[in-house]
Amino acid sequence: MDNAYHPLAPDWQVQHWFNTPAPLTLSSLHGKVIVLEAFQMLCPGCVSHGLPQAVRVHAAFPREQLAVVGLHTVFEHRDVMTPAALQAFLHEYRVPFPVGVDQPAPRGPIPMTMRAYAMQGTPTLTLIDRRGRVRQQHFGQVSDLVLGAQIGALLDEAPAGAAATSHVAGCTDDGCAVPATPGPTGAAE
Amino acid sequence: MDNAYHPLAPDWQVQHWFNTPAPLTLSSLHGKVIVLEAFQMLCPGCVSHGLPQAVRVHAAFPREQLAVVGLHTVFEHRDVMTPAALQAFLHEYRVPFPVGVDQPAPRGPIPMTMRAYAMQGTPTLTLIDRRGRVRQQHFGQVSDLVLGAQIGALLDEAPAGAAATSHVAGCTDDGCAVPATPGPTGAAE
Amino acid sequence: MDNAYHPLAPDWQVQHWFNTPAPLTLSSLHGKVIVLEAFQMLCPGCVSHGLPQAVRVHAAFPREQLAVVGLHTVFEHRDVMTPAALQAFLHEYRVPFPVGVDQPAPRGPIPMTMRAYAMQGTPTLTLIDRRGRVRQQHFGQVSDLVLGAQIGALLDEAPAGAAATSHVAGCTDDGCAVPATPGPTGAAE
Amino acid sequence: MDNAYHPLAPDWQVQHWFNTPAPLTLSSLHGKVIVLEAFQMLCPGCVSHGLPQAVRVHAAFPREQLAVVGLHTVFEHRDVMTPAALQAFLHEYRVPFPVGVDQPAPRGPIPMTMRAYAMQGTPTLTLIDRRGRVRQQHFGQVSDLVLGAQIGALLDEAPAGAAATSHVAGCTDDGCAVPATPGPTGAAE
Repeated sequence: MDNAYHPLAPDWQVQHWFNTPAPLTLSSLHGKVIVLEAFQMLCPGCVSHGLPQAVRVHAAFPREQLAVVGLHTVFEHRDVMTPAALQAFLHEYRVPFPVGVDQPAPRGPIPMTMRAYAMQGTPTLTLIDRRGRVRQQHFGQVSDLVLGAQIGALLDEAPAGAAATSHVAGCTDDGCAVPATPGPTGAAE
Repeated sequence: MDNAYHPLAPDWQVQHWFNTPAPLTLSSLHGKVIVLEAFQMLCPGCVSHGLPQAVRVHAAFPREQLAVVGLHTVFEHRDVMTPAALQAFLHEYRVPFPVGVDQPAPRGPIPMTMRAYAMQGTPTLTLIDRRGRVRQQHFGQVSDLVLGAQIGALLDEAPAGAAATSHVAGCTDDGCAVPATPGPTGAAE
Repeated sequence: MDNAYHPLAPDWQVQHWFNTPAPLTLSSLHGKVIVLEAFQMLCPGCVSHGLPQAVRVHAAFPREQLAVVGLHTVFEHRDVMTPAALQAFLHEYRVPFPVGVDQPAPRGPIPMTMRAYAMQGTPTLTLIDRRGRVRQQHFGQVSDLVLGAQIGALLDEAPAGAAATSHVAGCTDDGCAVPATPGPTGAAE
Repeated sequence: MDNAYHPLAPDWQVQHWFNTPAPLTLSSLHGKVIVLEAFQMLCPGCVSHGLPQAVRVHAAFPREQLAVVGLHTVFEHRDVMTPAALQAFLHEYRVPFPVGVDQPAPRGPIPMTMRAYAMQGTPTLTLIDRRGRVRQQHFGQVSDLVLGAQIGALLDEAPAGAAATSHVAGCTDDGCAVPATPGPTGAAE
């Protein structure tokens, strides 16, 4: 168990979801390790490295332990990388996991979730632990070996459920939990 | 010199050209071996195999002997694979050779040039010899070794200019040449 | 911490060591995760996949946490895969980690350590945890992602030292430790 | 037809042949394009690039037009890269074409054929045309595209048989042929 301070992952602000019957939220995935793959459909590094790696991760680990979620963070060529174009892209590339379209910002090219996570560009892979905390963020390429090791360590951590029971009421060795209201976990650690 | 019958390559019917100051025609490239790479920007096999191979061909052979020409033959998702989207794609993927947008047909999804060449889908690589004749057509993947051998054989054929002198007046061992009107070479072989 | 039963790794029976000033033993590496790569120099799968993966592992993780050790387990063509041939091979392929030559058995082609680990062939990658226990064994290919996850989980386990203190005297939540003699379990080394 | 001067390929001086019922000579392959792949079994570049490319060439072109021949040109680690070791190597790597062991020289590490061809090291791929002349020599890596183009051009040249008839008696437009004594073709061009 990693007891260092790690910030809670910001909520996702998504305009439209593909490949999922219902919108996804961090809290709906609580207890799982999350691999958040931010990409743009016309970004060559995303198409050749980022997305194929996310697909491999999706195939390699059990769904009840780990969730892969795509995020279309368009910050250039916005007129042509529309949700309709993304839908055709996801269909042709057979992307098997849920993908959300990041909410455009009122001002500036960087969409809302991308900004909240302070991503530097695409592809960016963010690892979120079972308790909803950001643990790693890789901009550009990361090797399967290093990513695998980070995933393996997070999977090995106590499931959130185990921790959650002791969290509900207040303080434990792990820290003090506040009532689960606004945040994805409700726990400030 | 290959004296078997090979059909003349149909003219290109192009709506818009990218990466070239002036529209390209078969006759403007006469004398060169032409590699015509037909693709769609949302076709995974085009992006992972067809276009990278065309880029390798473009880099491997001298420009004054061989021309690589891309053709965007959209026959699906036409609403999102627009010329504007293609322009962003060509920019992001740094495609270095001229690319034409195949003219949509009045009826049916298959655009005009794709139809004239009887292509089965994308990617399709067509080899056109120095005299403007279709010599090979590969739908899907072809190995660099086999493609290289076909290119090497075409490059080794006498330049069109050499043949043209004997063609001008009428008949030779090569056959009988008609005045250069409709076709790109003026030679009916 | 994984509290399931895992057998202790058998000692290595090595005829000759390369790339190390002194012979290696399991106990000299106690506290580290060990990746044991069994190979034969004339085994194509070892040369194309197994050894390059071991080299990547060696480069990706800190030396004080993880040790990669090669084991030349010759069970065919023994007359030509001699220690002298291996030395030339290790030199030409620039294998950077220690490699031991598995001790030939008095009878049969399978050498001693390969037999003790019940390996099915080459390449075989064995993962040994910080407490000297065999945790995974992969015959043939394993993806970097899956291997990385297994390594990451083992690296994340409490260092042997931490556990050792509670083990020395007898029973803890982890179990009961007997004095470190030959047995496969319960041994504190 | 290439009428430039190209030197005749030196005869092969081979100690032992594998994968062929009878020794191969240049003259026994006259009329075919020959790809001569010089390698050492413990040379990483040979194992990872040179030999796999030679195997691809062997598979891509018709046997009656092109012959792939391996040459084991050992100039280092001679005590361990013995013919017996090579035999095991060829078996394990399933090398499908004939391979000759280059004759060690009386003095110096460079074997006889390697020296006669002035090779700089391994791997070296030599292209010999249908008339037994050295046309290309690649030390290190050459791309499939470039190699394919060179092979394609050589395959497209007139078969030796056609030229041979006019060569027998003396001079033609191609040059003057001397009686076929010392060289593999008997033609000095």
